[in-house]
Amino acid sequence: MSDTVDPARGPRPAVVALDVGGTFVKWLVADERGVLRQGSVETRAAAGPASAFAVVLDTVDTALSAVPATHRPVGVGVAVPGTVDERRGVCVHSENLGWRDLPVAQRLREHTGLAVGFGHDVRSGATAEARLGAGREVPDQVYVSVGTGLAAALLLDGRMVSSGGYAGEIGHGGALDGAPCVCGGRGCAETVASAAAIARRYTAASGVAVDGARDVLARARAGEDVARRVWDDAVEVLSSLVADLVRVTGVPHVVIGGGLVHAGEDLLGPLRDQVRARLTVHPDPRIVPAALGGTAGSWGAALLGWEASGADLGPIVAAYGDAARRPA
Amino acid sequence: MSDTVDPARGPRPAVVALDVGGTFVKWLVADERGVLRQGSVETRAAAGPASAFAVVLDTVDTALSAVPATHRPVGVGVAVPGTVDERRGVCVHSENLGWRDLPVAQRLREHTGLAVGFGHDVRSGATAEARLGAGREVPDQVYVSVGTGLAAALLLDGRMVSSGGYAGEIGHGGALDGAPCVCGGRGCAETVASAAAIARRYTAASGVAVDGARDVLARARAGEDVARRVWDDAVEVLSSLVADLVRVTGVPHVVIGGGLVHAGEDLLGPLRDQVRARLTVHPDPRIVPAALGGTAGSWGAALLGWEASGADLGPIVAAYGDAARRPA
Repeated sequence: MSDTVDPARGPRPAVVALDVGGTFVKWLVADERGVLRQGSVETRAAAGPASAFAVVLDTVDTALSAVPATHRPVGVGVAVPGTVDERRGVCVHSENLGWRDLPVAQRLREHTGLAVGFGHDVRSGATAEARLGAGREVPDQVYVSVGTGLAAALLLDGRMVSSGGYAGEIGHGGALDGAPCVCGGRGCAETVASAAAIARRYTAASGVAVDGARDVLARARAGEDVARRVWDDAVEVLSSLVADLVRVTGVPHVVIGGGLVHAGEDLLGPLRDQVRARLTVHPDPRIVPAALGGTAGSWGAALLGWEASGADLGPIVAAYGDAARRPA
Repeated sequence: MSDTVDPARGPRPAVVALDVGGTFVKWLVADERGVLRQGSVETRAAAGPASAFAVVLDTVDTALSAVPATHRPVGVGVAVPGTVDERRGVCVHSENLGWRDLPVAQRLREHTGLAVGFGHDVRSGATAEARLGAGREVPDQVYVSVGTGLAAALLLDGRMVSSGGYAGEIGHGGALDGAPCVCGGRGCAETVASAAAIARRYTAASGVAVDGARDVLARARAGEDVARRVWDDAVEVLSSLVADLVRVTGVPHVVIGGGLVHAGEDLLGPLRDQVRARLTVHPDPRIVPAALGGTAGSWGAALLGWEASGADLGPIVAAYGDAARRPA
């Protein structure tokens, strides 16, 4: 029944959503009830900024041609990494994609003729968690994404904060010494506490190649000293970051997302204890794992598409929540 | 002309505003064009929480009876220190006043029968700076008040952030060691970088009593080593705080207020350099001194009163701006 055209009402509305990463572009087609089609393609970022943007346009076309005949596309939602100014619709800078001052929203509007919602990958993920996942009904919260990189999104008084794209860029800066960072600084949190840094620091200290932070954690659990030290350093830096986020924003709720959250209580247990030790006048925040996993960015992009189309988000959020929280 | 009743329109509207501090309650009566009457009374906080609140009610009565016969009071604005939840109208906790979970807004409404605007002293000062002073026309900014205490206010996307009263409480927490702080923590920023801490640390290190941070700065300027070290420590801690504020919120504009800003370029010069050194991916923020000085809290309280009364703030802000920025 859901895949037939209602002759009285015509084809049903659908959106196309893209979560653009440095390695893959994940796409999906969704109607108000949930996902209809999905897939992913390689970003080919190494081939240059223009090539990466061409892949984005091709992927939008692929997704649009995957919209079933029973549906008609009403909007496009796209989330990208880097410094993203949602208000202007511009990717100010993306290290991963090589983009600089790229008017993504306008280019996509011209390409598709559709309403376009454009956002930042971490803020899109945070929006999805806040509406569908681990942050529902909480007006003041931060979302911390710990994966290859490290960044936060601030939802304050129910509104996502952007500050021209620079809000939540906690992975870089703050320190005056420490290990050199890709950003040109030293001792940035991303050099110690990202999933990539955990693997890199372990290999640098032990000479042993590992399969990511998960492998380092397994070695720490097995009692290996170097692995334990590297893991504990990461948790300590993360604790300091989360405590700073809470001190500055005052939020009572912190959602931890990104690949590292798969460590579960090995991460969250000591993180809660150490954040608590660093807070004195602030109430202890709830620190909870993200509920949507790797799909948060795509769900967020779909919501961006619906919002741009002018749809009423209420029933969509209700329907998506059930689908999004279902274990994959 | 301004002090006569227009027979066609009746008495003109006025508000009563209180800036409640631990030592003095400053009050004023203002109409849409500026201040009509003002004064201050001792808070007598040492006599206990109930006494301090009785002083507030008395001061409201004093101010109301000072409203000229040509005017009629339409609102009351009150700013208080501590943890203030504007949404609920409650002072959650004020160390200085001894208040805990005091429903200030409701009590004042019952006492006066007028519309009441209730706020936090630092956020009120920040609102005044943002509308009348050094933060005009800037939607994303932070205000840092460095005086007896140390706290910040966050204006993001044109809206003041509160998070139940805990936003911007950067003076406490964050560290795990250092000097003991009144909050029960160790190494809090307030133990090094507040105006009070600068005087206290100098006296502890030198055995010499001083007349506040101003005196310490004068000794540092004169080449005294201990004073220089104490001053530089304070600037370093402040730089770290301001850099954290910018990293978390992404704002391009920082207003420094409170007593310490009278140090001028001795504070702002090294602060700008050190904040810049700590930022890598964020653009260097503008760091500017507050424009309204010690009157920011009172102007902010007056705006709270007008807002509560339902008045159109546009013309009031325009008229107040000229008055507020005039050197006292």
